[in-house]
Amino acid sequence: MEFKHLIRALFGLLSIVSACMIAVFAAGILLGETTDAIRSFSIPCMVGILMIIVLLATKKQNEKAILSQRMGYLFVTLAWVFATLLGSLPFIFSGAIPSFVDAFFETMSGFTTTGATILTDIEVLPKCILLWRAVTHWLGGMGIVVLTVAVLPLLGIGGRALLEAEAPGPQVDKFTPRISETAKILWLIYLGLTVIEILLLMIGGMSLFDAATHAFATMATGGFSTKNLSVGAYHSAYIDIVITIFMLFAGLNFSLYWKLLKGNIKAVLKDTEARVYILIFLAASIIIALNLLQGKNFLSFGTALRYASFQAASILTTTGFVTADYLTWPALAQTVLFILMFIGGCSGSTGGGIKVGRITTLIKMGFTEMRYLIKPRGIYGVFIDGQYLKKNVVYDIAAMVILYLVSMIVSTFVVSTGGYDILTSLSATLATLGNIGPGFALVGPVFNYAFFPDYIKVWLSFIMLLGRLEIFTVLVIFTKSYWK
Amino acid sequence: MEFKHLIRALFGLLSIVSACMIAVFAAGILLGETTDAIRSFSIPCMVGILMIIVLLATKKQNEKAILSQRMGYLFVTLAWVFATLLGSLPFIFSGAIPSFVDAFFETMSGFTTTGATILTDIEVLPKCILLWRAVTHWLGGMGIVVLTVAVLPLLGIGGRALLEAEAPGPQVDKFTPRISETAKILWLIYLGLTVIEILLLMIGGMSLFDAATHAFATMATGGFSTKNLSVGAYHSAYIDIVITIFMLFAGLNFSLYWKLLKGNIKAVLKDTEARVYILIFLAASIIIALNLLQGKNFLSFGTALRYASFQAASILTTTGFVTADYLTWPALAQTVLFILMFIGGCSGSTGGGIKVGRITTLIKMGFTEMRYLIKPRGIYGVFIDGQYLKKNVVYDIAAMVILYLVSMIVSTFVVSTGGYDILTSLSATLATLGNIGPGFALVGPVFNYAFFPDYIKVWLSFIMLLGRLEIFTVLVIFTKSYWK
Repeated sequence: MEFKHLIRALFGLLSIVSACMIAVFAAGILLGETTDAIRSFSIPCMVGILMIIVLLATKKQNEKAILSQRMGYLFVTLAWVFATLLGSLPFIFSGAIPSFVDAFFETMSGFTTTGATILTDIEVLPKCILLWRAVTHWLGGMGIVVLTVAVLPLLGIGGRALLEAEAPGPQVDKFTPRISETAKILWLIYLGLTVIEILLLMIGGMSLFDAATHAFATMATGGFSTKNLSVGAYHSAYIDIVITIFMLFAGLNFSLYWKLLKGNIKAVLKDTEARVYILIFLAASIIIALNLLQGKNFLSFGTALRYASFQAASILTTTGFVTADYLTWPALAQTVLFILMFIGGCSGSTGGGIKVGRITTLIKMGFTEMRYLIKPRGIYGVFIDGQYLKKNVVYDIAAMVILYLVSMIVSTFVVSTGGYDILTSLSATLATLGNIGPGFALVGPVFNYAFFPDYIKVWLSFIMLLGRLEIFTVLVIFTKSYWK
Repeated sequence: MEFKHLIRALFGLLSIVSACMIAVFAAGILLGETTDAIRSFSIPCMVGILMIIVLLATKKQNEKAILSQRMGYLFVTLAWVFATLLGSLPFIFSGAIPSFVDAFFETMSGFTTTGATILTDIEVLPKCILLWRAVTHWLGGMGIVVLTVAVLPLLGIGGRALLEAEAPGPQVDKFTPRISETAKILWLIYLGLTVIEILLLMIGGMSLFDAATHAFATMATGGFSTKNLSVGAYHSAYIDIVITIFMLFAGLNFSLYWKLLKGNIKAVLKDTEARVYILIFLAASIIIALNLLQGKNFLSFGTALRYASFQAASILTTTGFVTADYLTWPALAQTVLFILMFIGGCSGSTGGGIKVGRITTLIKMGFTEMRYLIKPRGIYGVFIDGQYLKKNVVYDIAAMVILYLVSMIVSTFVVSTGGYDILTSLSATLATLGNIGPGFALVGPVFNYAFFPDYIKVWLSFIMLLGRLEIFTVLVIFTKSYWK
């Protein structure tokens, strides 16, 4: 019985993906790409419509597909896998990405908002395919916000810890008790920010198409661009700044916008995670800018700061857009970007990575624990936003981060079995596990993931999903006790 | 009053260092290096003797220098710093290392059993200086075993956790209640193993001098050699194998030898940490050997395994000896060595790094915590050697590892301010924080640390100490509450 509910829920999700696919199909025809659109989308859309029909036809009166907590994990993981399978069809049928593994990698990279690509020439592709690529980001970003802010907290530990870490206190701040209600609010915030960014980018001279695709990729902290040179192709300080700001917006906890809308500005300004996040961004930007100036990569501090802050925001928020080939930057600038790859955005954002909140909590944990050395009989606790954080919650965060780092080590090993050097293996892992996109060495900003053999592409697709769903959600399915 | 005790304890420690210095002085004269020995050691020995005299002259009847737990941390940190200051004098006076910062780095590298060197040509130095260099290792290794097995467990959290992690159970296994008693047993085990290794190396054709210096460096998991090519200079499979085995011995928990001496073989065979440690060593050796064979670096599997197992043992145990320039090895072999740099030896060994026991515990923690996702109301625990590990202990281990990783990130940043690439900055940090010695890129096995500017040498000396004393012990001194 449970599996029946699971399948229905998956069908429901795939209906949403299909609806978006139909919209992109329509957009393709409007853009004058009728042949391409039909070739790419007709069969995938039919598959989607078929699913919607089956779903509606088998719907029983008053039926509610309620999943148990345990089924929830399986659903979330399968949701991303099946959405990727369906979403990869247009890439295959269009001929843009003939290989199934490549199409799967690209689509998983889209839905997990990673932005790592196997495409070597993006600009030759039909616009409808590029739009679909951006839409996978946007859907994935929306999915992850609803998941981490609204669904996971109700499901269990992984999410509970995340929410408690982010908004601790006697009364866990879930906005509204009902998921669908919360999801709707989040959806509106996400949509609103996207629309504002599209408008601002159009003011900067972008076409609606370019503005929309880049806004989708920004708000999802995805990173797919429609240009081979990524955002760097526009050579516009205005566009760089707008995207920098919106990347930072997308990397913030979405519950903060909700608080802001309710007029609770004080809570937003006092939010520890947001403050640390901004502080990291500012420090990284300034250090990189000074280093770029010192290295004579740019001649004025203003220009250096523009490129530095764009790249710092892009890596920190795990977006992965680029405006310059940072592999040509001096060593310190590169190391700072490398360190940012370990951090990620805020919890409850579309950003990936370990997350600023978790790192802040764990550093506090480390220093708090040290106090036992001085007074072993004392009682100490970790405080975030002035509120005591239960030891169990901190413990849980530590466990998640440990598994994150173990995944990192294992994946570095797996990638290097292909004969790739340490920095390529490590940064390809960090870039996919943290849902960033570009890394260092062979996966640097002007390169792509096309050269990897299929088994590494499949592995890295798994690693993207593992990172995106915060490790626990995916790994738990592979445990024996899950299936008991 | 407390500080008076602290100073007396430090004088006591420096007396031991001085006594060893006098012994090396004598050895230098026996080796026929009278001029060199007098130049290098006469003044440092006089400083030492003066301290011993002051210590004895001010000793009061029945006085016992008992340090409070809090003072203990300061003592341990200062012990390494002052021993390094005293121990660096022979290097300076001999003219072998004219720069004070270089001599400090080299001596700290010795006492922390790191083995990173700033010397570009080792073989031109007088033998008495090379002997002193090896003796700093041997003293440091002894110090750390006594500290982590006998002293820290009585002091507080850092050590308690280590011991409980290593020998959990209702009755914490401290061998004997009295520190001095335990220290004596450890000292005899350490001495015994060193003597056996010296004899075995001499059977392999080494001179007493070479055998002694290499045995000192092996048992301390230090890594200073008397040859520019390190152990590779001997071109002997027998010597390689003997040193590989003794590196592995040195990386084992020394309390296991005590259990073995008591005839408790079962406990040794069942020790989880030791088993995981051996497993990691075997897996790494075989993977590297196969990769070397595949890369045609060696033509027979036997030879490949000889070099692979030597290097795997050397990095895993954090010794740092080399028999081949592994930067010329294929990518996978390098990545495996790189991953081993994160691990380290067993707790209670002379090895550095995070330690196998801690990593095993934390991985178990991660998977245990995941079970809450399935049954949130269940009660789960981490078990090591079939014994339940208190949640507080696991929490404490997690805190230590988190601070270890934070130190790693901070230090990578600091090194890269000198303009060094990511892999140099990161691996120089891992090699010093983990007390290993050689790293990758510019700090690879055939290079040294001489090229770093002084501020980075001072910083890395601090990082060696931080890693050696398991983070907490050093960091706590820099907290405000420590000085209240």
